[in-house]
Amino acid sequence: MGIKTQSAAHLKATNPVNSPRFSQIVGALPEVVPFVAPETLERRAGRRLALRMGANESPYGPSPLAIEAMGLAARTGNLYNDPEGFELRTKIAEQEGVPLSHVVLGAGIDDLLMLVCRTFLDPGDPVVTSLGGYPTFNYAVDATGGTFVKTPYVDDRNDLGGLSGLAQKYRPKLVYLANPDNPSGSWYTPAEIVAFRHSLPQGTILLLDEAYADFALANPTFGLDDTGVIRLRTFSKAHGLAGLRVGYAVMPPAVAAATDKHRLHFGVNRVAQAGALASLDDVDHLDAVKAQTEYAKVRLAEIARKVGLEPLPSSTNFVCMATESRQRAEVILNGLALRDVFIRKPGVAPLDRCIRVTVAREPELELFECLLLDVVSGI
Amino acid sequence: MGIKTQSAAHLKATNPVNSPRFSQIVGALPEVVPFVAPETLERRAGRRLALRMGANESPYGPSPLAIEAMGLAARTGNLYNDPEGFELRTKIAEQEGVPLSHVVLGAGIDDLLMLVCRTFLDPGDPVVTSLGGYPTFNYAVDATGGTFVKTPYVDDRNDLGGLSGLAQKYRPKLVYLANPDNPSGSWYTPAEIVAFRHSLPQGTILLLDEAYADFALANPTFGLDDTGVIRLRTFSKAHGLAGLRVGYAVMPPAVAAATDKHRLHFGVNRVAQAGALASLDDVDHLDAVKAQTEYAKVRLAEIARKVGLEPLPSSTNFVCMATESRQRAEVILNGLALRDVFIRKPGVAPLDRCIRVTVAREPELELFECLLLDVVSGI
Repeated sequence: MGIKTQSAAHLKATNPVNSPRFSQIVGALPEVVPFVAPETLERRAGRRLALRMGANESPYGPSPLAIEAMGLAARTGNLYNDPEGFELRTKIAEQEGVPLSHVVLGAGIDDLLMLVCRTFLDPGDPVVTSLGGYPTFNYAVDATGGTFVKTPYVDDRNDLGGLSGLAQKYRPKLVYLANPDNPSGSWYTPAEIVAFRHSLPQGTILLLDEAYADFALANPTFGLDDTGVIRLRTFSKAHGLAGLRVGYAVMPPAVAAATDKHRLHFGVNRVAQAGALASLDDVDHLDAVKAQTEYAKVRLAEIARKVGLEPLPSSTNFVCMATESRQRAEVILNGLALRDVFIRKPGVAPLDRCIRVTVAREPELELFECLLLDVVSGI
Repeated sequence: MGIKTQSAAHLKATNPVNSPRFSQIVGALPEVVPFVAPETLERRAGRRLALRMGANESPYGPSPLAIEAMGLAARTGNLYNDPEGFELRTKIAEQEGVPLSHVVLGAGIDDLLMLVCRTFLDPGDPVVTSLGGYPTFNYAVDATGGTFVKTPYVDDRNDLGGLSGLAQKYRPKLVYLANPDNPSGSWYTPAEIVAFRHSLPQGTILLLDEAYADFALANPTFGLDDTGVIRLRTFSKAHGLAGLRVGYAVMPPAVAAATDKHRLHFGVNRVAQAGALASLDDVDHLDAVKAQTEYAKVRLAEIARKVGLEPLPSSTNFVCMATESRQRAEVILNGLALRDVFIRKPGVAPLDRCIRVTVAREPELELFECLLLDVVSGI
């Protein structure tokens, strides 16, 4: 079942005399911000957060090698960054086992989503995605004037059959899928993802958001000549470089060449390129982060059960904890916010009955357990 | 006299079966890169540059306070940057004497040009600019499908009367002007710029690129309620943070709110925000950079005259040196390139008879003098 919604960009723009002559798309966009930042919450409250467990940041920091490389790169910050990101792209291409021409850098997956949407979408073009999926993809589609065809989560996972059916019906240029998924934490096997990709019609590209792939058991691979897949990766999660804004896409060379015609060539800054490059070399750090993340997810699941919540399976660095209802999840979210705990919750059914909690180090986990128990026992 | 050129986006896109279904605008864009980077030149040559005097980078480095702040910020790189850039915007607003709602951050002026163009331009909308002006503005207009109305430089400066006349005729949403100007180095007084702004028709916004304003004798100011001006500033030049990608725009609050609906909210990274904030506090460093820049420009002018070139007046951190002809300028550019000296030259008449040379420290100036003399004496 598909739920077709018009994009906000197709509302009639009201543009009175003397008001700025915005473009048709921007003039009709709603005033929304994809996420309210923890810094904004702190400014509103007038005090610091006690726990920052809402943005799926790594609590384990950047690699020490990356910190050192970034400090050095800052010293030559007067020089422009390499707009081709040659060294970093070369290392990524090696690790991914693809030619350099397949690798495109971006200032995080947000930037790459905007870049890909602008590369393909004309106003009115439909895209297929899950209802309640990653909102920044929707933000990027809105900015192009694209429209949405959405299908709800089933069993707290993306509904691959539903997405595939909508793709067959609407033949969109892009189908968006996050695997592992945010906000559910769910994951499909490589075989399932490859089968899904082959279920899509010709001319439809699977835009596969692998932001959390470092935490997955395994990830799908596709042939070098497969022109139907774009994969997105980030250094924001396991690599602990969220604040540096580095991500990359692996895409067909013809698409990469098209992005080169309108991308922000200097968008990934000098310090970010140096940090990401060093981080790729620090396999020990990455392995330690993965191990600590697994441990913290076990602890979060225990904490959830202890207070009567149901932890959903997670292949990411966060755990969705289900309550009986949306109302109850909101009460818990608000109770935690009053105690200066920053977490988030999905906004759309069926996942809106959950709170979403990022992994943390042990002292923070203990404090979280204490405060969550306080909230739940007081309801 | 206006030279009206159709944008590349209006060429007919050829989109054979099975090729990617790009958007109409991107499908028709030419494959061009605004600038070839010095890193690319080094990779092509297989060796390092001897002198990097082509990108108008500061040879005096970032402020030591900024370097320290950036090193510290890198340590918490696992946390997302503040998408509102609150601290940095607050300090900028103070220094500019405007409310916070007027200040928009971007990853350099390139990013802000794209943001402003996307905020206003629909496909086919005309913009007015100088023929041979800053190419990245043109790159941003192309990405929106906008079209150009251009007027040539007169007396090696932007032709304010010509630009104004075209604006009256075409009533564009945007008129672009760089002051001080790149690539000429020329400058108009605040009174001249304010008069120019008031010569524009209602509904036309002056997009005033002040990338080099830190080097100007004085800069124009506009009323807080003036909805006809957007000013762009950068930390890439006098502040020596080109590789960090930070700039800002001062614009009417209604326009700022519109950019918030489609901008890349996390685009200015954590280290960049920290570096720019610290740099604003280091007035001594900025003053020293300005003084050293003035000295180096005097030296560059001397060097130019010594080899028979004519230095154009400069209110920037570079000097345009005029030869008799485009051909001669190209011979000199190529001769310097063979000696591993990276400079650039304007591509469009009348400035195409010039080479453009960025200021440098004394040892580099001496080497440049030596190599330029070698080239010119060998012609």
